[in-house]
Amino acid sequence: MYVIGERINGMFKDVRQAIQAKDKSVIQELARKQVASGAHCLDVNVGPASDDPLWAIQWLVESIREVSDAPIAIDTTKGDVMAAGIKAAGPGSVINSTTGQQAKLDALLPLAAANDASLVALTIDEKGIPRDAGGRVEIALRVVAAAMEHGISPDRIYVDGVIIPVSADQVTPTHVLNTIAQCKMLSDPPPKTILGLSNVSQGTAYRELINRTYLVMALAHGLDAAIMDPMDSEMMDAMITAELLLNRNVYCADFLKAYRASAQ
Amino acid sequence: MYVIGERINGMFKDVRQAIQAKDKSVIQELARKQVASGAHCLDVNVGPASDDPLWAIQWLVESIREVSDAPIAIDTTKGDVMAAGIKAAGPGSVINSTTGQQAKLDALLPLAAANDASLVALTIDEKGIPRDAGGRVEIALRVVAAAMEHGISPDRIYVDGVIIPVSADQVTPTHVLNTIAQCKMLSDPPPKTILGLSNVSQGTAYRELINRTYLVMALAHGLDAAIMDPMDSEMMDAMITAELLLNRNVYCADFLKAYRASAQ
Repeated sequence: MYVIGERINGMFKDVRQAIQAKDKSVIQELARKQVASGAHCLDVNVGPASDDPLWAIQWLVESIREVSDAPIAIDTTKGDVMAAGIKAAGPGSVINSTTGQQAKLDALLPLAAANDASLVALTIDEKGIPRDAGGRVEIALRVVAAAMEHGISPDRIYVDGVIIPVSADQVTPTHVLNTIAQCKMLSDPPPKTILGLSNVSQGTAYRELINRTYLVMALAHGLDAAIMDPMDSEMMDAMITAELLLNRNVYCADFLKAYRASAQ
Repeated sequence: MYVIGERINGMFKDVRQAIQAKDKSVIQELARKQVASGAHCLDVNVGPASDDPLWAIQWLVESIREVSDAPIAIDTTKGDVMAAGIKAAGPGSVINSTTGQQAKLDALLPLAAANDASLVALTIDEKGIPRDAGGRVEIALRVVAAAMEHGISPDRIYVDGVIIPVSADQVTPTHVLNTIAQCKMLSDPPPKTILGLSNVSQGTAYRELINRTYLVMALAHGLDAAIMDPMDSEMMDAMITAELLLNRNVYCADFLKAYRASAQ
């Protein structure tokens, strides 16, 4: 599974303070630690940390690039911040995120095409978040079709079925699992599927338990990627074990250590 | 999920010694503890503990019945031991197990019908264990059809897709998950599905982690029951959380405690 590390986000106090103090060592340490824990890509989100997000996104990306060449996901709703971040991050980066709204697609698909970037696509359109899996897959199909018109292969799209907290709605987790499974049948190659995992447990007790349990359920339905905390070692254990049981990792006696050794 | 507690089995040293010493307090304590931990049914297997399994099965069942009226699953390959155990356990007990072999069905379906028992049906026939899910479901269908001829409703059959250790074969776990999902489409009502969970981790490191990860994956595919250790609290946490995410338990702030309180 493609692990996108979520920790470089101005919503976290340590990151917010580092941005405000222009202390790149904190950012670089988070980059190093996430990659060492198994992240394949680093999500970067300025959040509410700066009045100058255009400066901040470039400073974050450049700080990371001094210590890591891991792909970077630029996580913002602002068009100019996205464009600046994607250019700074270089080819192979990830636009996080578009939706199925036409205005978003018109702005972000050309950016992805021009910069050889992948896109996270939330299954939201002008009417909002669909109630069930069918509506989500319909939006995913429209995004895939629009991407292909821009020369973007479906497997550069990461469909995010938009999980909401289980404390607010207990039906959506199943709809999102079905969305993951059904996306496999959309195209050849199919789009990838992704989860913003921690959303499922917002406002609940036992957050880590809920996160890792839902991750395992999603992997069993074919999940390709997640935005998550790779430093949560119990979550990574659950992920490695689920992939072992799905024959995505080769079994060996000490499969947890073997996976981590190969991730370094 | 229907939890069948696996601990009263002569393969375990404490049970073997209790049978040999005719010390029913050990058996009764295991019965009480498993039920208190969330078991809905108690599996009973003499195993290699006694030269007189016909006596032993009846002694085990009678010892349990003094402290619990939970349904009992009689776990043996011997026809006379099964018949004696089922009669001692009373209506609503579970025959563990039949296979799809005609001789087994001819012996065990009448016993189930006469004693209002359910049956665990391993997807094994005269040719052995099928390679994939399709072969497993085919056997399940034959068992369901044969059961109906004896007046046994499909939902009294627990189809066990026969998991084997992931250390020996990494393809089977996926076939068994697909078997669970496909069994839902076999009949109306469909047969139930069950796993002998600990088999998946035999001979591996991190057994509990593998067991609970596979349980969550199977629940996400619709698993109805498992033969497992209900005193493994991390496994029970994973199960409760998966059922919460599948909307099988109602969410509340302290859902782990709430589930356990309602199980008492």
